[in-house]
Parts: sequence; C-alpha cells; structure tokens
Amino acid sequence: MATPYKRLDKNDAAVLLVDHQAGLLSLVRDFTPDEFKNNVLALADIAKFFNLPTILTTSFESGPNGPLVPELKAMFPDAPYIARHGNINAWDNEDFVKAVRATGKKQLIIAGVVTDVCVAFPTLSALAEGYDVFVVTDASGTFNPVVRDAALNRMSQAGAQLMNWFAVGCELHRDWRNDIEGFGGLLAGHLPAYANLMQSFSSNAK
Amino acid sequence: MATPYKRLDKNDAAVLLVDHQAGLLSLVRDFTPDEFKNNVLALADIAKFFNLPTILTTSFESGPNGPLVPELKAMFPDAPYIARHGNINAWDNEDFVKAVRATGKKQLIIAGVVTDVCVAFPTLSALAEGYDVFVVTDASGTFNPVVRDAALNRMSQAGAQLMNWFAVGCELHRDWRNDIEGFGGLLAGHLPAYANLMQSFSSNAK
Amino acid sequence: MATPYKRLDKNDAAVLLVDHQAGLLSLVRDFTPDEFKNNVLALADIAKFFNLPTILTTSFESGPNGPLVPELKAMFPDAPYIARHGNINAWDNEDFVKAVRATGKKQLIIAGVVTDVCVAFPTLSALAEGYDVFVVTDASGTFNPVVRDAALNRMSQAGAQLMNWFAVGCELHRDWRNDIEGFGGLLAGHLPAYANLMQSFSSNAK
Amino acid sequence: MATPYKRLDKNDAAVLLVDHQAGLLSLVRDFTPDEFKNNVLALADIAKFFNLPTILTTSFESGPNGPLVPELKAMFPDAPYIARHGNINAWDNEDFVKAVRATGKKQLIIAGVVTDVCVAFPTLSALAEGYDVFVVTDASGTFNPVVRDAALNRMSQAGAQLMNWFAVGCELHRDWRNDIEGFGGLLAGHLPAYANLMQSFSSNAK
Amino acid sequence: MATPYKRLDKNDAAVLLVDHQAGLLSLVRDFTPDEFKNNVLALADIAKFFNLPTILTTSFESGPNGPLVPELKAMFPDAPYIARHGNINAWDNEDFVKAVRATGKKQLIIAGVVTDVCVAFPTLSALAEGYDVFVVTDASGTFNPVVRDAALNRMSQAGAQLMNWFAVGCELHRDWRNDIEGFGGLLAGHLPAYANLMQSFSSNAK
Amino acid sequence: MATPYKRLDKNDAAVLLVDHQAGLLSLVRDFTPDEFKNNVLALADIAKFFNLPTILTTSFESGPNGPLVPELKAMFPDAPYIARHGNINAWDNEDFVKAVRATGKKQLIIAGVVTDVCVAFPTLSALAEGYDVFVVTDASGTFNPVVRDAALNRMSQAGAQLMNWFAVGCELHRDWRNDIEGFGGLLAGHLPAYANLMQSFSSNAK
Amino acid sequence: MATPYKRLDKNDAAVLLVDHQAGLLSLVRDFTPDEFKNNVLALADIAKFFNLPTILTTSFESGPNGPLVPELKAMFPDAPYIARHGNINAWDNEDFVKAVRATGKKQLIIAGVVTDVCVAFPTLSALAEGYDVFVVTDASGTFNPVVRDAALNRMSQAGAQLMNWFAVGCELHRDWRNDIEGFGGLLAGHLPAYANLMQSFSSNAK
Amino acid sequence: MATPYKRLDKNDAAVLLVDHQAGLLSLVRDFTPDEFKNNVLALADIAKFFNLPTILTTSFESGPNGPLVPELKAMFPDAPYIARHGNINAWDNEDFVKAVRATGKKQLIIAGVVTDVCVAFPTLSALAEGYDVFVVTDASGTFNPVVRDAALNRMSQAGAQLMNWFAVGCELHRDWRNDIEGFGGLLAGHLPAYANLMQSFSSNAK
Repeated sequence: MATPYKRLDKNDAAVLLVDHQAGLLSLVRDFTPDEFKNNVLALADIAKFFNLPTILTTSFESGPNGPLVPELKAMFPDAPYIARHGNINAWDNEDFVKAVRATGKKQLIIAGVVTDVCVAFPTLSALAEGYDVFVVTDASGTFNPVVRDAALNRMSQAGAQLMNWFAVGCELHRDWRNDIEGFGGLLAGHLPAYANLMQSFSSNAK
Repeated sequence: MATPYKRLDKNDAAVLLVDHQAGLLSLVRDFTPDEFKNNVLALADIAKFFNLPTILTTSFESGPNGPLVPELKAMFPDAPYIARHGNINAWDNEDFVKAVRATGKKQLIIAGVVTDVCVAFPTLSALAEGYDVFVVTDASGTFNPVVRDAALNRMSQAGAQLMNWFAVGCELHRDWRNDIEGFGGLLAGHLPAYANLMQSFSSNAK
Repeated sequence: MATPYKRLDKNDAAVLLVDHQAGLLSLVRDFTPDEFKNNVLALADIAKFFNLPTILTTSFESGPNGPLVPELKAMFPDAPYIARHGNINAWDNEDFVKAVRATGKKQLIIAGVVTDVCVAFPTLSALAEGYDVFVVTDASGTFNPVVRDAALNRMSQAGAQLMNWFAVGCELHRDWRNDIEGFGGLLAGHLPAYANLMQSFSSNAK
Repeated sequence: MATPYKRLDKNDAAVLLVDHQAGLLSLVRDFTPDEFKNNVLALADIAKFFNLPTILTTSFESGPNGPLVPELKAMFPDAPYIARHGNINAWDNEDFVKAVRATGKKQLIIAGVVTDVCVAFPTLSALAEGYDVFVVTDASGTFNPVVRDAALNRMSQAGAQLMNWFAVGCELHRDWRNDIEGFGGLLAGHLPAYANLMQSFSSNAK
Repeated sequence: MATPYKRLDKNDAAVLLVDHQAGLLSLVRDFTPDEFKNNVLALADIAKFFNLPTILTTSFESGPNGPLVPELKAMFPDAPYIARHGNINAWDNEDFVKAVRATGKKQLIIAGVVTDVCVAFPTLSALAEGYDVFVVTDASGTFNPVVRDAALNRMSQAGAQLMNWFAVGCELHRDWRNDIEGFGGLLAGHLPAYANLMQSFSSNAK
Repeated sequence: MATPYKRLDKNDAAVLLVDHQAGLLSLVRDFTPDEFKNNVLALADIAKFFNLPTILTTSFESGPNGPLVPELKAMFPDAPYIARHGNINAWDNEDFVKAVRATGKKQLIIAGVVTDVCVAFPTLSALAEGYDVFVVTDASGTFNPVVRDAALNRMSQAGAQLMNWFAVGCELHRDWRNDIEGFGGLLAGHLPAYANLMQSFSSNAK
Repeated sequence: MATPYKRLDKNDAAVLLVDHQAGLLSLVRDFTPDEFKNNVLALADIAKFFNLPTILTTSFESGPNGPLVPELKAMFPDAPYIARHGNINAWDNEDFVKAVRATGKKQLIIAGVVTDVCVAFPTLSALAEGYDVFVVTDASGTFNPVVRDAALNRMSQAGAQLMNWFAVGCELHRDWRNDIEGFGGLLAGHLPAYANLMQSFSSNAK
Repeated sequence: MATPYKRLDKNDAAVLLVDHQAGLLSLVRDFTPDEFKNNVLALADIAKFFNLPTILTTSFESGPNGPLVPELKAMFPDAPYIARHGNINAWDNEDFVKAVRATGKKQLIIAGVVTDVCVAFPTLSALAEGYDVFVVTDASGTFNPVVRDAALNRMSQAGAQLMNWFAVGCELHRDWRNDIEGFGGLLAGHLPAYANLMQSFSSNAK
C-alpha cells in the first residue's frame, strides 16, 4: 500500500539545478550562507563525479535575480543552460522539458532557489508526467522554515522523495570499492568533520 | 497512487479570508506581529492583483474578537462580507457557503486566524465537498507551533495542499511576461530583501 | 483517496485521560510545566462542559509513577477509574476496553503521559478496532520533541487525527449561540490572552 | 485505508545496529553526545533484556570511520558481526541479509549512524522485501535536523514506523508484571528523571 | 571592587507593579501567556505573603492600554493605585514617588510591562536616587528577547540586580521554619512541578 | 560606583544612521527582513517626530554595498549625507565628525549595518571623546547572534547604553500629553499589535 | 581596573555541592536530564580526582525535595554533610560555614540546584566575606534560561567567576604530565566525543 | 570609569591560534562544522593579509587530540609552532610566552579550541601581564552555548574585548583605499553573501 523503494541509479538519473542565482540567494534564510553554499556545491560535485546529465536554468538573470553563481557555470560548461525569460515553473519552458527528455533518464534529482516555487513547481509537474523525483532539501533554500515545511509537505504528498546531498551521493555510489579515493575526497571536501577524521587517521598511520 | 498535481489557476480560484480580526490577532504567537501582518496583506494583494473573487468573514466582531483589520476592509469594499453570529466553522454558515458557490470556482485559497479552527474546519468541510483547498500557512496564525503542526497535519492528511503566499502568487502568475512591473512591485512591497535587490539593480543600471 | 472529514460530535465522543500522574509528569519536557498543566485542565474542562463520558486510567499509581493529579480526580468523581496493575497499553486492560465500549461512543478523544507510549499504544489499538481517534497533542507530553514527532507521525500514519484542546472544544461546540457565556468563560480560564481581550472589551463597554 | 497497527512482538523481532562507529559518531549533530550515547546504549540494553536476535554491522572500520564503539562490542559478543568492506547499504551485503533471514523474524528494529544513509537505505530495502521496519529515531543520528527530517519522511512514506527507544521497550514488554524489577532497572539506568522518582519513592518508603 | 551583596530584607522592601494592563499584555512576546500570567501572580502572592507595601500604577488605562488585570486589582484593594495620565516613566509622576517614599523602604522590587520602558525607566531613576532595585525579570515582559536583553543589560550596568520571582520569595523568606505550610503552598500554587513532588510525597506518606 | 542614569533628552540628542544600504542589508541575518525594515523605519520616524538632527552616512555606495535604502533618503532630504569613500569607521571621516559636532548635541543615538563594525567602531570612538552613546540594538543588524552578542558586549563594556527603538521613542517623549495623537500614530504604524489594540478600542467606543 | 585573574589552585580550593536532591532535580529544565546528570557527576569526579575538600548539603531531604542523589552520597562517604532543616541560603547555616572555614581554602567551587537560590545565595554571601567563588554553570540547574541568565548576571556582577566543569578540571590540572592516564580517563568518562577520539586513536595504534 | 577604546592596530597586533586540531574540532558543537571551518580560515587569512606575526600551538598532537588542521600548517610555514607536551594553559609554556614577547606587540588577537580552556586560560594570563587581548569569538569553539557564555563572561569581566573575525579584519584595515581589491577578495572568499553582491554588481556593470 505504501510507496515502493525507488532507489537512485547512476545510470538512470539526471540533475536539475534551478535558479541558484546571486540575487535570489539573498532570499534564502533557512540555511546560513556558508552551509548553503557548501551544500549546493557538494551536490554539483556529485553530479560531476557520477557524470550525471545536468541541466542548469535561470530566471531573468539580467535583472535583479542576478547571474547564476559562477562556480556552477564553471563546473558545467557544456550542460544545457536554459535562461527562462518569463516561465516561473521551469517545466512550462519547452526547452527545459526537451532537455530533460533528451537525457533519457527517469530519475530526476532536483534542487533550487526558492524551494516553494522553483523546486516545487517543476517537481510537481515532473511527478505528474511519471518521473521519479528526488528533492535535495539541503541544497534548496527559501525564506524561512514555515515556508520550507509547507513546500516539502506538498511535494512529499505528491510522491516526491525527500533527500539530502550526502544521501544522494551515497545512494548513487552504492559501494565504496567503486572508487574509494574519489568518493572519499568528495566527502572530505564538503564535510569538514569527515576531513578531520581522515586527517587524524592518516596522521596516526604515519 | 499519490495525489495528482492540483495546480492553482487564476481563472478557477477564489480566496477566503477568515477571522483576521483585531482581537483575535493577539492570540497569534507562531509568527511575529510584523511578519504576520505582512504575510496577510501580501495574500490580500495577490487576491487583488489577480482579481480573484474574495470572501471575508468574521466571528462575533462586535465582541472581544474585535473588528476585521481595517486594511482588509478597505481593500475589498465590494467583497461578500459574512459576519457570523455564532457558527465557528464558517462552512456551517449558509451565507458563506452560498458566497463560495456563487464564485463558481473549484479552487479555494484559504487563510485565517486561528489556523486550527477558523482555517482547519472550513478546509476540511470544503475538501469533503470536493473542492481543491490550498491553505496559506504563513497567512494563518495560531497559539504556538505545536498547535500549528497538528492542524496542518490534519488538513494535509485530508487532502489539502499546504502553501505560502509567495508560492500562491507565483503559481497563479505562471509567466512574468504577463505583467513584469505589476508582479515585481507586489513582491517588492512585501519582500524587503527583494526590494533591496531591485534597488541595487536599478541603481547600478543608472 | 484522502481521509474523509471525521468531525467531532458531542453526542458521539468520549474522552480518555491516560496516566496524568504526579510522578510521570516530571518526565514531560516538551512543554513547560505551566503550559502543560493548563492544557490538561483545559481538556478536562471541555469534557465536563460537554458532559462527555470520560475515563481515567493510571499505571502503578502506588509506586514511583505517583498518584493521578488531584485536580483530575476531583473533577471526575464518578468517572470509570482504571488503575492498571501491569498493562502498559491501556487497551490491553479488559476493564478499560469495557469502559470504553460502555460509553457507546465511536469517537475517542485521547491525551496522556507519555505521548509515545500511554497515548500512542491505545490510539493504535483503538484505530485497529475501527474507532475514530482524536489525539490531543498539547495535552499529551513526553521526553522531547524528537520523541513526540515520531509518536505523532506513527499515529497520524495509522489514521489518527491530530488536534489541540482549543480545536477540540470549538469543533464540539460548533455554534457560540449554544452557550456564549459558558464557552467564553471556559476559554478565558485557560487562555490568558483571550481573558485580556474580554477584560478590555468589558472595561470599554462600561 | 490507513496502515494497520503493526505491533512489536518480542517473539518476532530482531535488532539491527548499523555503523555506530567511533569516527562516524563525530558526524552526529542532531543530538548532544551525552544524549545520543545514552539512547544507543538504552536500545542495546532493550535488545539484551528481551533476548532479541541482534546484528551488528560496520563500514570500513579499519579506516577513518573508526571501530565499533566498545560498549556495543562488549554487550553482544556472540552476535553476527558484519564488517562491510564496501557496501554502503547494509542490505546490499549478502552476509548481512543472510544474518537477518537467519533470525527468522519479520519485525526489524533498526538504528544507526547516519540516519539518512546507514539507517534509511536498509530500511527501504527491507520494507521492499516485506519486512515490518521500526526505526528508532533517537538512537539514530545525523548531520542536522533538516537532513533528519527528510530521511524520516522518506522512510515513513515508504511504510516504516517511527519510534523511540522508550516506546520500543514498552511495546515489547507489554505488561510490567512480566518483570517489574528488571524493566524498572533498565529504565532507571537510562532515564535519570525516572531514577529520581524511584529514589524519592524508596526513600519515602523507609 | 565589585558590587557588595545587597540582600533582600522583608522589613526593608516594597513592590512596584507597573502597567500590567490587559491591552499592554498583548505586546508581551518573550514569554507564553500561560507562563507570564503565572509569574506575575506568583510575584503578587509573594508581596501579599510577606506583607510588603505594594504600589500599583497604570498608564492611560481608559484607552487602548486597557485596565489593570483584575486579579491584581482584587489582591491589593488598599494599595496605592496611581493611574498616570501621561508620564511614561512612573518616577516622573509625583504621586508615585511619594507613594514609594511613604513606604519608608530602601529596597524596591519591580516588575512590569514592557520591560524596556515601564520597568527600565523607573528602575534607572530609583537607582539614581540611591535605592536598591531588584528587577524581577520573569514577571516583566516585552516584545522579544533582543529587546529584553538590551533592557536588562542597561539596568544591570546601572546597578540593578536581576532576579526571578522564585529567588525573590526565597531570599525574603530565608528560613523555611518561619512558615513551612504557607510558603510551601505558595510555591506549589505556582510551580506545577513542585506541586507534583508534594503530591507524590504525601501520597507515599499515607 | 555604577554608571549614572544617562537619560535621553530630545533637546540634546542626535541620530546617526550608518550604512543602511541595499546591498549590505542582505548580510543581516539576526533579524528577519520584515522585522528589520520595520525597526529601522521606526527609528527614522522617531528622529523625524522629535526633529532630532540626523546624519546619514554610507560606505562605497556605488559598489556592491549598494545605495542607501530609498525610504531613508526620502525621509531626510536635508540631512548631512556623508558618502565615505574608504573610511570603515565613520568617525575616521572628518566630514562625519564635523557634522556630528555641528549638531551641538552630546547624546548620540546610533544604528547601522553591520553592528560589529559600522555601529561598534563609531560608538567606541564617540565614547572615547566623551559623548553619551545609545545603541539601538534592534535597528542594527549583523551576520548572526554570536557576532551581535560580542559586539554589544564590547560596546556595553565601553560605556554605551543598549536600547531598542521603542524605548528610545518613549524616553524622548516622556509624557504622552506632549502629543497623544502623534506619538500614538507613530507606535501604531510600527507595532501591529498596538494598532490592533487601538482598532479594537475605537471600534468599541463607537 | 578590571578583575585580576583569579586562577584555580588545587591546593587552595574546596567544592560545595548544594541541594542535588532527587525531588529538586525534577525542577531543572535548562538542561536535559542526561546532560545534567553527566555534568554533576563529572564535577564530583573532579573533586575526587584532585582530593579537594568537598561539602555536601541538602534542604529538607525528608520532605518532597527528596534525598541527595545516591551517586554523590556514595562518592563522598566522609565529607561533611549538612542537612539543613530550614535555612534556604546554606551560608546562613552555622555548620555549613564552619565546614567551609575548616577546609582552610580561599577558593570555593560551587554548584547546585536551583541556580538562582541554592547557588546564588551562598555565592553572594561567600563573596561578601572575601572568598573567591567559581560557579560551575553547567552543574547548576534551574527552571529555564531566563531565570538562569538573571542569576548568573547577579553573581557575575558581584565578582563570581563563571565556569564549566571541564574548565574547572583543566585549570586545576594545569599540566597533563601530572597524570595523563587519570585525567584522560576522567574526561573520557564524561565526554563521549572525547572517548570516541581515544577509541579511534588506540584502534589505529594497534 | 568605563574601559577606554582599545583599537586594533595592524602595527601592534599579533595572532595566537591555539589548538585547532583535527581531533579536538570534533568537540566543537556551538557552531556547525561548515561555519567554524570558514571562520577559522577567515581569521587566518586576515593574519596573512596584514602580515601579523602569528603563533601556532597545539596540545598533545601525537595523541587523540590529533594534528593541527593542515590548512593552518600550510598557511604559516614559518610561524613559531609550539607543540606543548603537557601545559594546558599555553601561557604556562615558556616557549610560547617567549614567542609572544618576541613579536614585540602589545595587542593579542586570540582564537582556539576549546573556548573555555585553550582560549580563556592564556587570555586571562595575558591580561594579567598587561596585554590587550581581543578574543575572536566566532573562530573559537566549544561544547555548547552554556559553556561558551560562561567563558566569554569570564574573559570579558577580566578586561578582554570580544570580537568576530569580520570586525577584526575591518578594524585592522581601517580604510578600504589601503587595498580595495585585496580586502574585498578576502571578504568575498569567506562571506558567500558578500560574494553574491559582488557577482551581481559586476554582472550589472557589464
């Protein structure tokens, strides 16, 4: 009767990064700026590490919403980049949906700013079209926790799975033996507490 | 198996503002007074902006509950105004239900004070009659977060969709090109952080 | 597909007060002692006000769990009082279930200490037997919010409705005209902020 | 329509303790170290008290993740101990699944570090295979409450029951008369507030 | 070099209750209404218990600030009652200062609404005139903790002593043997957790 | 031995508004944007209401720090406006200090963004020159509460008085009879909870 | 001008443990029970480790306040034990003061329940008599943080030094070489996070 | 009577970084790992930027406390590096004090882990010897906020100035014109919100 386990599969997943723009980021108040920046870049590193098809999109980036944060632009120079000129829901933009379809993937990993609009709207649209959607809650930000909770409830009730970047990375990786160094390095780069463990360990090993 | 995406449509939506009265507002403790006033007026501005049929109702306004806040009265001079003399659940009031039916809309956007009674009861009644109900959680206030969480859970489990005023506005607007100036002005008026972005942007543009 | 609106009906509801004992109350840390005492007594006043059949039960009251708080004992001198000598889940106690059945009611309003055991277990058992169960979250206390959230989630997923004492009272009352003075007095006695409204109002009226 | 009451049964339950390792514990920030240590050891004491088959597993314990905490090792000297050399999801490890099956139990009580990965992944896998899974939320830790909430939501939506160690113990015990001294001692050892009640009581009794 | 111990002395202390009015109380957001009502009445009970000269004062009580809360009026029917018609700082009101001087006491115990104005201003004035001032922080309320912290810092730096009602009562009482029953009853009436201890104790004693 | 009461005097006070710029405001995270905007404008209204000499200053406003917020610019068209081209501490800017001296006032009321730099530095400098400095803590914002607490401690220990805008207004006004309507209107405009009291009161009066 | 560094000296320090009684502990709400128990026992272990003269005192232990917690009784079988029959301030009890003087120490390390009374009163009295007093804030508990903050402010302004048990232990020990094993064991026993470090370290060392 | 303004001067300041070791960092719970890492590295960048003499010290780095975090080691290859073999208070170590004296500076900027020991002890010792000490509260971490508050109070009362890394950088820099690019880059590297402002600004400038 309950939802069956939809498990992330690196061969069937794409990543959608929606409206992580310099201006809009100043609206995000449910995370500290340090945490949020780290979380978004961690998710981006995961997309790169697993070579997942990644789609970038922005809303009115020549206006007050500001440009896409430069780190993301630099990391995905060849990714489809959909600068929306009016559609609030990215799924209303034909180019965006085409880009999603072109990936051939059924699992969509999504994060963006703000959670209740830029993430929730395309999530609900994609679910309605039969995609499996995995919302990365800690790489998505909004005005305050009351707003976040409502948005996450709405998406969850519609069938989305709520995750965090660390769990996304681990569910995609499945087995450390696939690449211990690479994956460990990724984690250490975004989890200072894990980097400390590695540092203490290697120091002792000497 | 999950709830399908019920998407707000400006041609099929009405707004219900329940018991935002001067006395009752002193009971609201899950938001600061500044935030809550701003959220309620933002939702009212959205109703005006999209010309949504709007219904006002109050409970015992000649007693301690106090008068409807004057800003709402002033904004909707021609809206149906149901001063309930006893019904706690607005849906138990025939005039109120008639006014809702008279709008001919199937989507109800609701907010009020207090969340667990004045919002929850008509929400549950309207859902039972087949309406799609969108609860604006940040324009609805109550005694404390424990009470709020129980009320939102009850409504969500019964099929209501939990939203915030910003998401309601964006889902109704759909495309900035429908009215950039107007919608941007509405947001700037209620989101100081967005107003700052616009101010910095236009200052740079000079 | 969603749960239909199960609405409290004063002619079909009974109240179960589980293990509000002097010793156990020292375990409650998700409310301040002032708040919690007020919430429990408010619920008891509601049971009295609507003449709802009420059942009291305690666990090992001659041991460290301590006696039932004296206010409850005094308010319901004729209520069934089941002192359980071992059953942790009150529903495992035949006398308790008999007392519930003897009320002839289908709606059970429940509160107790601690939420995750004394409330959750009989709630789940009663739901399994087809009762409609309304959990009064703010008159039920436990160790901390993490524990509370898990318990409320478990009950909600099993079909219980989460409410607070104020909403319970209002849903039972339905119409202020049934008894303005009486119900207003009940609220003022447990909501200092509402008492202040009444005091200011009557002062102005003079 | 709702989930039926799945009640823990000491004759049909097994306990899975996943990755409570000295290094990984430094990642847990949604509990204080004192609280978390107490919660984990309380769950372990419950497993011992009811003689539940218990399975220990670790991930890369010779590396930075560190050794299993020594108290757990000491408490379950004869339990299956699966040191995973790569599988992130313990359910991907054949030995682990074999050990689970060998218990012949249908109810799995699970806790671990971190909640969103080491607990969530095997929970979802076990649910998919038809097990009843009971997640002990306060003996499972992770990076922060946002991450925890997403993970618990994901597991709950998939059919897991969210519990805490105290409720697990009480649901297994069912009746104090099965062993008053033993169970009371277990509680007093992990609930200082309950120990105080017992101490005051026995002092008065003298 | 540090401030010497100024110890409350029931023979040299007076109590000033400033502006606990029904309207103004709706501004208090740094305590829940339940807690704050309890704290104010506890302080009033202490004033009565020790027969301390007590002075009541209000600001504009015929306007929106509302009447003095009726419980205080009823408890001190013969106390000086200064209804200020304009002075914000009660110390600017000659009648108030005369009433203070008429007590002949050097120690002033003060509480009021709001902390930063109605408490802070007369506190600073009285300190400047050489009185010892004891601010009861938990019977004084204001808009939010940021405001409270600034006000308490200002008073503390000027030489006021910050206390809470419980400590005030205990410092005045000094020795339980002066009146065990009376003082214990006072505490039990305002500390539900203490009442529980007494109830468990006397239950065991039987 | 303690600091004597330095009381704000409308004939001897000037207001310094430091760096309330559109860009810098996005750094303020110890208040919500709604609250902070309201607090700053309330302080500005107080400066206008009492005709206090007011000095505006900005840092690098043609760069990322952004322009002064337009409301402040509009409210004080004739105030000295010092656009600093490099000095971080406004007191290092000769024009600023000259403007302060030109007011002939000894009491300086200061607020700004960010508290730990733009407020703290000129506050410490002004104190060193013998001014009485009143820091408006709720109209000054910074990165987080840890930073705020350190900055407020530093200023307080150096002799600054910590206040909030409401207390500043009340201490300047001293007696409601100086202007009931005007001052009441100012408060109602910035304290929604007070506006509700006034609205209920005047509604009853009819 | 500032307070000189008063440094704890194991040859000149005594420990006062005031009213850590089973009943009173249920009043402590500014720490979780797990944390508080751990903190108090850690301080007791420090007193033992450094062989500091230690004085135990209780208030009315044959009544609802309950007996001294048994762990403390067991740890200090030969310590002066002053069961006060009425004095609220332990310093008002001659036997207590005699016991303090008999230690011949000038530095008093104090902790107790509740902070605002049982700790604050003797602290202020001892300071007035010229003792150096070190208040262990995390081994002292009370009703809530507002009460704690007022009490700590009062003691700090009177010249007490605020510390925590870990800092007390470290300031007394001064040099790890005095006893690495012993002091490390003490820390590991009360700091699970430190025990994990030691466990990981020794595991690697093998 | 108050403390005079001690202003940081880049020609008279040295930086002390105490015990930022990989193991000890796992004890820091009053900041998230992301925030804390950023704060410490920001302070280190400030030390480099202004060429301040910097002293590194560690405690038992070959044991469980772990090695100095590698970033700090790499940034200050030529700095005095005092590996203490036993002294808990770095000021008890002759080499450390010699290194401090060798800088010839009178102003000491200090940060470390944990605040209550590794920062507080040398701070108090240095103050006693007449140094001006500036404690960087957000680059110093400890077990929890109760411990932090006690430690900061103790240092503040002894004459230390509490600051944050951002204020330290700004007070040292004094005038942006000394190096706009360099200082702006430093801020942008550690303040994502400021980096966003710069990115939006330069994007608009194009």
